[in-house]
Amino acid sequence: MNPHPIDSLDTLRQRVREFAEARAWQRYHTPKNLVMALSVEAAELAEPFQWLTPEQSQTLSAEQHEAVRQEIADVLIYLTRLADLLDIDLLEAAADKLALNARKYPVEKSHGNALKYSDFSHD
Amino acid sequence: MNPHPIDSLDTLRQRVREFAEARAWQRYHTPKNLVMALSVEAAELAEPFQWLTPEQSQTLSAEQHEAVRQEIADVLIYLTRLADLLDIDLLEAAADKLALNARKYPVEKSHGNALKYSDFSHD
Amino acid sequence: MNPHPIDSLDTLRQRVREFAEARAWQRYHTPKNLVMALSVEAAELAEPFQWLTPEQSQTLSAEQHEAVRQEIADVLIYLTRLADLLDIDLLEAAADKLALNARKYPVEKSHGNALKYSDFSHD
Amino acid sequence: MNPHPIDSLDTLRQRVREFAEARAWQRYHTPKNLVMALSVEAAELAEPFQWLTPEQSQTLSAEQHEAVRQEIADVLIYLTRLADLLDIDLLEAAADKLALNARKYPVEKSHGNALKYSDFSHD
Repeated sequence: MNPHPIDSLDTLRQRVREFAEARAWQRYHTPKNLVMALSVEAAELAEPFQWLTPEQSQTLSAEQHEAVRQEIADVLIYLTRLADLLDIDLLEAAADKLALNARKYPVEKSHGNALKYSDFSHD
Repeated sequence: MNPHPIDSLDTLRQRVREFAEARAWQRYHTPKNLVMALSVEAAELAEPFQWLTPEQSQTLSAEQHEAVRQEIADVLIYLTRLADLLDIDLLEAAADKLALNARKYPVEKSHGNALKYSDFSHD
Repeated sequence: MNPHPIDSLDTLRQRVREFAEARAWQRYHTPKNLVMALSVEAAELAEPFQWLTPEQSQTLSAEQHEAVRQEIADVLIYLTRLADLLDIDLLEAAADKLALNARKYPVEKSHGNALKYSDFSHD
Repeated sequence: MNPHPIDSLDTLRQRVREFAEARAWQRYHTPKNLVMALSVEAAELAEPFQWLTPEQSQTLSAEQHEAVRQEIADVLIYLTRLADLLDIDLLEAAADKLALNARKYPVEKSHGNALKYSDFSHD
């Protein structure tokens, strides 16, 4: 069991900040560098899935699952750090985006269809 | 003000799940497809920064900031959806990864140096 | 028919260089910025495939095919520009890497198995 | 010196195809999987640059340069394989895209400014 559990995104934000400051990494943590690092982590998360069928991607081995769990954590850590530097509230941003998406992808037009809204203009 | 505020990652997870289910998007939401979508969103987040200097990336215009905020939200939304499907607790995963990173990047060796731990073997 | 056909990677390299210089874009074209731009283009190439099944990805519509063709071109253009700045011969680099891969993935061990070489150590 | 030099993209395309067929990897090489693999390689190419300043990215060590050269080769190899499967001529696609870009970024409007064409509409 982790001796330093984290119970909220606010706590995570604080812990990631302390981690960076203890190592004097602030000068590396420009928004530009962090979006690059986040992209790299997202690719590392995608890598184990690249040759899998969609079905295989749903039945990971315990070892694969743990590797994916660590990459997911890396993405969240960099995302939290970036949002901290840009003074963005992650949950508020997500709530606003979901509201926007609900208008972009109305249920009646999007049912069973993951295409982009713009594609509906062909209807 | 958002009429549907979100106060925790658990609530976000539930809301994203409902969003997908209302549109019958479950069949698109395999882990393989979601890691692809997450990578694409991470790149859309990186795109506005690609020609900026590190300094410029720290002083975004209000318009740029809002665009970046929406892309950050997209990354979080897909990350939450992926973690939900894989039954991964995001905060627990992040706490475990921070503990691992603290061992990989000891303060005394990492101070002012963002290089990878493996690079320290050259010391 | 394109009035300015390109018959080799050398010609492409020269044309891309002239394109950048005519617009005084050299100061944007640091290796760091170009690898970011290349990643973004790679994601734009991936985007139309994210919700497709593997089978669907093999039967693109004419419109999809043309969009993909343009994104492939963007990746090649940035790759050529980056290699030019780093004084790397693309075909020589590819020939060397194929030779390396042939040793990493020997036919007898890799037949029908796209897993990484390192994974064979479990055998 | 490489005993199997490659003198054109056509030869590279043929060599990459033979490499895949000798290992019976065709079933892995759907366009969807290849765009994922290409994105992952593009991120591996970006990774060594993520914490560098733009200036540092212009003065790689010999070791860094060789690592980057190999990642560039990987991107070209997957790009060539993808174009082969989709029956796309890489040089023709690049020539057509450069012609399109020349119209999108006219010299007089783009001089010293790498912003997207769409941004010029604010003028």
